[in-house]
Amino acid sequence: MKAKENLYNELNTKYIINLNGEILKAQDAKISIFDRAFLFGDSVYDVFYSESACLIFFEEHISRLYHSANLLGIKIFFSKEQITQEILKTLEHSKIKDAYIRIILTRGEGPITLDPTSSFHNNLVIIVGQKPAHPKRYYEQGMSLYLAETQRNSIKSVDPNAKSGNYLNNVIALKEAKDYGADDAIMLNANKELTEGSNFNIWLIKDGVYYTPPVKSGLLAGITRAKVLELIKRNKLPYSEQTLFKDNIFKSDEVFITSSTRGVMPISKINENHFGSHMNDWPNTLKVSKLYDELIKTQISQGKYRYL
Amino acid sequence: MKAKENLYNELNTKYIINLNGEILKAQDAKISIFDRAFLFGDSVYDVFYSESACLIFFEEHISRLYHSANLLGIKIFFSKEQITQEILKTLEHSKIKDAYIRIILTRGEGPITLDPTSSFHNNLVIIVGQKPAHPKRYYEQGMSLYLAETQRNSIKSVDPNAKSGNYLNNVIALKEAKDYGADDAIMLNANKELTEGSNFNIWLIKDGVYYTPPVKSGLLAGITRAKVLELIKRNKLPYSEQTLFKDNIFKSDEVFITSSTRGVMPISKINENHFGSHMNDWPNTLKVSKLYDELIKTQISQGKYRYL
Repeated sequence: MKAKENLYNELNTKYIINLNGEILKAQDAKISIFDRAFLFGDSVYDVFYSESACLIFFEEHISRLYHSANLLGIKIFFSKEQITQEILKTLEHSKIKDAYIRIILTRGEGPITLDPTSSFHNNLVIIVGQKPAHPKRYYEQGMSLYLAETQRNSIKSVDPNAKSGNYLNNVIALKEAKDYGADDAIMLNANKELTEGSNFNIWLIKDGVYYTPPVKSGLLAGITRAKVLELIKRNKLPYSEQTLFKDNIFKSDEVFITSSTRGVMPISKINENHFGSHMNDWPNTLKVSKLYDELIKTQISQGKYRYL
Repeated sequence: MKAKENLYNELNTKYIINLNGEILKAQDAKISIFDRAFLFGDSVYDVFYSESACLIFFEEHISRLYHSANLLGIKIFFSKEQITQEILKTLEHSKIKDAYIRIILTRGEGPITLDPTSSFHNNLVIIVGQKPAHPKRYYEQGMSLYLAETQRNSIKSVDPNAKSGNYLNNVIALKEAKDYGADDAIMLNANKELTEGSNFNIWLIKDGVYYTPPVKSGLLAGITRAKVLELIKRNKLPYSEQTLFKDNIFKSDEVFITSSTRGVMPISKINENHFGSHMNDWPNTLKVSKLYDELIKTQISQGKYRYL
């Protein structure tokens, strides 16, 4: 009981919740056990952040939430404007300027049946907290990865391009990586093509060329991934979005990952293959990392979605 | 709001809940949005039933719950005796003699991270309701199935032999079937092997031989499936547990499905292929159906797990 009390103290300090429009403390944010997200993982979500009280790539994230819902046939009963208002309301209430925002939209609650056509409403949960400070050493010395035995879900089973409430595939891969002693996991698909990490996209650099796997290998079309691709094209850097295999990984000169909360993060090691241990070892990673940081600064200065 | 009120009236009438030991009305049964089942589908569950206030194949179901948890690396902090006591307590409170029982065990709540090693407790939910009366016409005239385009999750991604909170794969397949106009869905794996239905096992009969796919094709080792296999062996009926393909399905003389709440149910149609429309068309299905009904009667007469 003491452990749970401490846990809720921690959650109350870290997060503020908007549940169907009502602002709640973490300990009071509870959902029906008949909600389909709880029963079946039948939900979509998205994660983004704010900096200097300005939402970063907000329109892209909200659009993706609708895209995820569409891929799973989940009807959204809210307009983008309604969801935006609820997010801004929660952020204003939180008074957090550099925020982590998670939005979860479920297929609602009802009598227990797998049949999704029984749903006539959503439950909408917005979680706001401090933007997580990823360890500084990851940016300075690189993060280590493990190529998991667990295969990424097939597009033909549950499309990884939908950010859904079904995350066991990723959880199992991450557990494998932790058991191995690595910081995080990357996965191949059933055809042994490189896909993505537990919650990030992956990039390889060989002879100055930037490589990343295509969405058809079975991965999330990351928003940071799209922004980095744009920057690479705009700056006329050589790149290829192509099917990649294990061999491509281990023959790389540099490896980095992208995600909304992490930005561009260098990789020092995959299994027992080393890719350097200092920013000096990663000139090409540094190049896109700088371009991306500048892009974020521009976003903030032009900040359309500003609060506080 | 009216719709939600009606919904909760319906849920309150249908179900009684045990949440971490506390008996609650359906409308009061709420879980933290930080629970990993809600966030990631990071949970296991099992479904079974009672007849004449006697739990059917109870030990098998509880053992399977632990097996599912083990496959996903979810630590169960309760003993089987504790869980059994909570189930019996809920059933006694419900006063329902022919009950549906769903037990859900989650990896607990905590700060948001995919990392499962952060979990130090479970949340335990027991849902008790009236045993669902499947339409009588399904037993008399057969149920229709649709062979979904959606592939069953691969064993190498999220093993279908673990009954988990990740059910989108099945939900999507069922939606396909409903859109087609069928009652339910069956799925193949990536190698085009027949696996199982949205929440049932499948059997084919050809020239008097009973066929069912092996667990290695990627399916749940159903308890009714195991009982029917035992009955077939004990009665020296010809059978084969073997890899099956689309062709096997459509060349079958009879098709039936098994699940704990449904028992043995005949299939009249898969896509546009017909397999009869009356019990007279299904002599071999009827044979195992009768044997299974007798087995259940014996269970009840020997009833170890009796309440009320």
